[in-house]
Amino acid sequence: MTAAEPGDEDAGRDADRAAGKAGGSSRPGLNRRHLLLGGAATGLGALAAAGIQLTGGRPGSGRSAAEDAEHRAEAAGAGLDTTGANGTSVVPFYGVRQSGIETPAQAHAVFLALDLKPDLTAQRLAALLRLLTDDAAALTQGRPALADTEPELAVQPARLTVTFGFGPALVALAAPEKSPPWLKPLPAFGIDRLKAEYTGGDLLIQICADDPVAVAHARRMLLKDSRSFASLRWVQQGFLHAYGAGTAGATPRNLFGQKDGSGNPRVGSAEFERVVWGDSAVKPWLENGTSLVIRRIAMNLDTWDELDRRGREESVGRTLASGAPLTGTAEHDEPDFAARGPLGFPVIADSSHLRRARPEDARQRIFRRPYNYDDAPAAADGAPGGISNSGQIFVSYQADVDRQFVPIQQRLDQLDILNEWTVPVGSAVFAVPPGVFEGGFVGEQLFS
Amino acid sequence: MTAAEPGDEDAGRDADRAAGKAGGSSRPGLNRRHLLLGGAATGLGALAAAGIQLTGGRPGSGRSAAEDAEHRAEAAGAGLDTTGANGTSVVPFYGVRQSGIETPAQAHAVFLALDLKPDLTAQRLAALLRLLTDDAAALTQGRPALADTEPELAVQPARLTVTFGFGPALVALAAPEKSPPWLKPLPAFGIDRLKAEYTGGDLLIQICADDPVAVAHARRMLLKDSRSFASLRWVQQGFLHAYGAGTAGATPRNLFGQKDGSGNPRVGSAEFERVVWGDSAVKPWLENGTSLVIRRIAMNLDTWDELDRRGREESVGRTLASGAPLTGTAEHDEPDFAARGPLGFPVIADSSHLRRARPEDARQRIFRRPYNYDDAPAAADGAPGGISNSGQIFVSYQADVDRQFVPIQQRLDQLDILNEWTVPVGSAVFAVPPGVFEGGFVGEQLFS
Repeated sequence: MTAAEPGDEDAGRDADRAAGKAGGSSRPGLNRRHLLLGGAATGLGALAAAGIQLTGGRPGSGRSAAEDAEHRAEAAGAGLDTTGANGTSVVPFYGVRQSGIETPAQAHAVFLALDLKPDLTAQRLAALLRLLTDDAAALTQGRPALADTEPELAVQPARLTVTFGFGPALVALAAPEKSPPWLKPLPAFGIDRLKAEYTGGDLLIQICADDPVAVAHARRMLLKDSRSFASLRWVQQGFLHAYGAGTAGATPRNLFGQKDGSGNPRVGSAEFERVVWGDSAVKPWLENGTSLVIRRIAMNLDTWDELDRRGREESVGRTLASGAPLTGTAEHDEPDFAARGPLGFPVIADSSHLRRARPEDARQRIFRRPYNYDDAPAAADGAPGGISNSGQIFVSYQADVDRQFVPIQQRLDQLDILNEWTVPVGSAVFAVPPGVFEGGFVGEQLFS
Repeated sequence: MTAAEPGDEDAGRDADRAAGKAGGSSRPGLNRRHLLLGGAATGLGALAAAGIQLTGGRPGSGRSAAEDAEHRAEAAGAGLDTTGANGTSVVPFYGVRQSGIETPAQAHAVFLALDLKPDLTAQRLAALLRLLTDDAAALTQGRPALADTEPELAVQPARLTVTFGFGPALVALAAPEKSPPWLKPLPAFGIDRLKAEYTGGDLLIQICADDPVAVAHARRMLLKDSRSFASLRWVQQGFLHAYGAGTAGATPRNLFGQKDGSGNPRVGSAEFERVVWGDSAVKPWLENGTSLVIRRIAMNLDTWDELDRRGREESVGRTLASGAPLTGTAEHDEPDFAARGPLGFPVIADSSHLRRARPEDARQRIFRRPYNYDDAPAAADGAPGGISNSGQIFVSYQADVDRQFVPIQQRLDQLDILNEWTVPVGSAVFAVPPGVFEGGFVGEQLFS
């Protein structure tokens, strides 16, 4: 044991950061500890003084933003990580755009919605965003956050990404004149049964990684650092196939067994650029930014089970095994909505999810990046005897919510046979600011 | 699309199984579907008729039980899976002992506690156990369960194991005279703040895999098949480092940042045999069986954060970085409780967790296989403003709960400085029956 030096406690903490730390002023645990430890030598040691050996942490890539973007597009095109080692894989943090959108979906995600404290000033908001940016910049690269309390949990980021989204109240506090017209709650849909605990929020933090420990540690550090600025509104945790399970680059399946996301624009394509990043000329501060819609969709697996396989395929409009449209043989075949079966009925039913979700207007497209959830059934979630509390954390990115997302959802609201087995129970909309360069912070465009 | 054949619906279902299926008699969804689909051709197709292509499923290994045991011990000794591919890795199901105990801990676990329906007969209980055994035998080998509704989710087991434990009421129903004396709730401990929703249960199903989708699918199928026999009492979900993150064979860290399990007997050692499988002569039906204690330990990360690193190490009695006892340099060094520091105080404090948990009596040992949990903070879990609902799903195996587990826990209850930051909120004890051979079912020893 290296002896710890009293007084090292605050070494390396900058003033800004210390100001943001919660709970630093009262330390009841210390008194109890001194009593209970029976006099064993104690000291307030900084992490470095305690002799931590950090292995596996990597510095930033040092690449330019343009190189970053190119690298990300390449990695995305190639499927999952190319290094072969899960834990040490790193996704660049700095870049023209935030990571966690084009990044091939990691196995685990947690979505945290925070509410800003009522008396928060714009200046303090900027301090919060700087703090969280610094945390994310370190943690995503396998480095402990400043004053990280469990640094050993930080060294295997496993493609950790942290992506920030701004709710209406956050933008209103920082720069109300810069709020895009679509940054507001979605219109009420007839199928919605929204619960407050999964709806709204001022600041969204999307944390994704291929290791649940990396997600848990990042979540912990980011929430701790936000505690004196904001309160936690809701948490949603999701998963896909683990690293090395599923097939790299394949469309993931949801808990209905469907391939979900077959219609997504391909990352790196011109269409993807248009759908997600859009026309930056309109709202300059959102150049290389986008919007995020997150909806919690409860899936009633019990009634879904009453459908046989054929019924499921007709409901979706696709075969379950391959994900091909019922008029095709491969997942990415273009559906033929005009095709009729021997009895004269459409092969892809008019009420099928595929038919209803597919826009006539090519501008009405979105990029989906959903996760499954499978939580413990609570008493509140159904009658006693319920065995599941499962569904999808639907997440989509699009340049303009009103122009792209809302028309699709309106069509699904009017008629989509999948509505029989799914219920939206949460909904929120966020503006996703551009990426960050070293020395900057996420959302700085709102403060200049 | 292959045309589905009407009437295939029940093909391949045996009568036993059909009798056990819940909800088969009423199918309201079908009527709605016929109306809503607007007349698209429908049919009740068996899975095979729908043209499913299952890839990656593997037949059983065909090894003998003795070979299985040897193989498992080898695999356990070597650390994580040796095939290199996560999704397709298979742990044998059939064998003299149940898997999921010696199996190197997978990344994900869900623990399901069921309560038998009040009017369940011993005969129906045997039918339930046979049903669940058949499901587990298929799913763990990457094969869909019989009448699997999402067979595509079954093909990547990712070292899926399903381990069954029997609570007091289950053994009492089947063979009251065979109940081991330790199969009862643990004695009340002063530190306990047990909640009904994490305590007790008649049948435990432990599902572990390196892929959360494999866990979710197995959970779904096993709960569906148990629905007409039992109700779900509680669910606990946990995680460790993902496949390919963490270090193969290394002791996993908990969310306090500690290496947890350093004192475990090594799988395959004579000590492990004695600790876990014990002296089978005493209770013949539990030969190659053991006991499982599961306790949900809430960890107060917020007050733990008030401790500096040195204080944490003294509380535990080990260094955080390496997990070495404070008197040693490597994780598995034997602690020297007699060692004193320069001021004459013990280097490893008497109140430290290491000192309190380490038995003087070598027979008081257990094998721990814990998981972390990190759930959404509920309003009920603390005052508004809480940011975590985290802790450990403590799981231990030992041949005799009263002789091995209880004395350790009593010492920790009397004095363990970690009690300052941890609260047991759930507790249950189960008898773990021996493994199963093809054609048998788990717990069959109780019915003969």
